[in-house]
Amino acid sequence: MSNELTEDRRSLADLLQRVERLEALEEIARLIASYGPAVDSGSAAATAALWDVEGRYRFSVGPDLVTLRGRDQIEEMVQGPGHQQIINDGASHFLGSARIELDDETAVATCYSMLVRYDGDSRRHYVDRVSANRWVLRRTDGVWQVVERLNHLLDGREEARALLGQSG
Amino acid sequence: MSNELTEDRRSLADLLQRVERLEALEEIARLIASYGPAVDSGSAAATAALWDVEGRYRFSVGPDLVTLRGRDQIEEMVQGPGHQQIINDGASHFLGSARIELDDETAVATCYSMLVRYDGDSRRHYVDRVSANRWVLRRTDGVWQVVERLNHLLDGREEARALLGQSG
Amino acid sequence: MSNELTEDRRSLADLLQRVERLEALEEIARLIASYGPAVDSGSAAATAALWDVEGRYRFSVGPDLVTLRGRDQIEEMVQGPGHQQIINDGASHFLGSARIELDDETAVATCYSMLVRYDGDSRRHYVDRVSANRWVLRRTDGVWQVVERLNHLLDGREEARALLGQSG
Repeated sequence: MSNELTEDRRSLADLLQRVERLEALEEIARLIASYGPAVDSGSAAATAALWDVEGRYRFSVGPDLVTLRGRDQIEEMVQGPGHQQIINDGASHFLGSARIELDDETAVATCYSMLVRYDGDSRRHYVDRVSANRWVLRRTDGVWQVVERLNHLLDGREEARALLGQSG
Repeated sequence: MSNELTEDRRSLADLLQRVERLEALEEIARLIASYGPAVDSGSAAATAALWDVEGRYRFSVGPDLVTLRGRDQIEEMVQGPGHQQIINDGASHFLGSARIELDDETAVATCYSMLVRYDGDSRRHYVDRVSANRWVLRRTDGVWQVVERLNHLLDGREEARALLGQSG
Repeated sequence: MSNELTEDRRSLADLLQRVERLEALEEIARLIASYGPAVDSGSAAATAALWDVEGRYRFSVGPDLVTLRGRDQIEEMVQGPGHQQIINDGASHFLGSARIELDDETAVATCYSMLVRYDGDSRRHYVDRVSANRWVLRRTDGVWQVVERLNHLLDGREEARALLGQSG
C-alpha cells in the first residue's frame, strides 16, 4: 500500500475518534436533558433507567445528604407522595448545560439544577431549590448511565462550593 | 478497486452520516437557542422566520390553549401590546437544553421554557411562567424550521406532564 | 492518483473541516458552561483564565456599565467582599445555552445569565439578576478565550434588547 493511502487511513481513523468523542458528549448531554422530563412526568421507570443498576443518587435533605441506592429506590422516590405532590402542583426540574470531562468509558459532568414549583394559592411560580450537581457516568454496552449523581444545595454550605471547584 | 479501498470508502460514508447527524442536532439546538434573543429583542420577523411558513405556535393562556397559525400571526404576537409591555419592562425567555429525537428530515425536541420578568416597582426579577415545550421540526431545503411548538404551563395541568412523558 | 482517490481525499478534507467546526462550537459551549462553577466556587484563577490576558468583562451596576480589564481585575472581583458574600450565602450563576456565530478563529456567543441567590432569613432562593450576555471570543494557540463579555441587565434598559437583537 502506498504512503498516501496509509496517510489517508490514519486521517480516517483519527477523524473517527474525534467523531466518537463528540457523540459521547452529545449522549451524555442528552441523558442529563432527559432527567427533567422523566421525573416531572412521573415516569418512574424511565427516570430509574438513566442510572446504572447499582447507581446512586445523593442529594441534600436539610443539612444532610440522603442516598438512594439502585434503580428500585429511585423509582420509589418518583412514585412517593412527596414527589407526586410536587409534580401534581406543577414543577420543572430545570437543569443547566453541563461541563463534561470525558475519559474513555467514564465521564464526570458538572451542572446546576433548579426546581421551579407552582403555588396554587398565590398562582405564582417560585424557585424552590438550586443545587450544584456532579454526575459520575459510565458507558456499559455502549450506553451511558449514571453511576452516581451528587447534588448539594446551594444555600451556603461548603460542600456545594467544593463540588463546583472540582469541575475542571 | 481493492477490498481495502472499498472498506475505506464505506468508513468514509458512515462517518459522513454520523457528522451529518451531529450537525442536525446542533442546528436544532441553535434554532431553539435563537428563540429567546429574537423574541426578547422584539425582532418580530426573526422570530417568525424560525417557523415554517404554515407553522403553528400553541401555548397556554389561562386553562386554554391558544394557537397562532403562520408567520404573520407570530409576528403580530411579538409586535402586540402584551409582548411589547413584557419586553419593555425587561424579560428573558430562558429555555433549557432540549432532548432531541431526530428522524431523517423531521425531529421532535422536548425542553422547558421559563419567562423571567422584571418588576419595576419592587425592582426585582421573578419567574412569571414555566412551561413544558414540544417542538416538532422539519428540514426544508436544508433549513430546520418549526412546524409546531406546543407549550403547556407547568401549573399542575395534566397535559404538561403528558407532554414530558412522551419525550423518550 | 486515480480520480476516485482524489475524490476520497477531498471528502476527507471536507469532513475534517466539518468536525473541526463542531469541535469549536463544543469548546465554546464548554467555556461558557465553565463560568458558573468557577465563579460560584470562588476559583478566582480558574475564572480569570477563561479570559484572554487582556480580556474585558463589562456588566451593569445600577444604570451604568462597569468594566473589568485583564485577568487581575477579574480575579479581584471574585476575591472581593461583594462576591464572597454572595457565594457564602449560596449562589448559582446559571447560564443558558448560547447561540454561537463562528468565524474561523473568532466567535460571538449570545445567551442569558441568571443569578439565583439564597436568602438565609426566609430560607428561600430567589432570582437576583437576569442579564443578556454577549461573549466575543478568540482562539489563541488552539484555546478559545474571552476577549470581551458584555452583560446588560434585563430590567427594561434598551441596551439589553439591542444586544439580543444583534445575535442573528
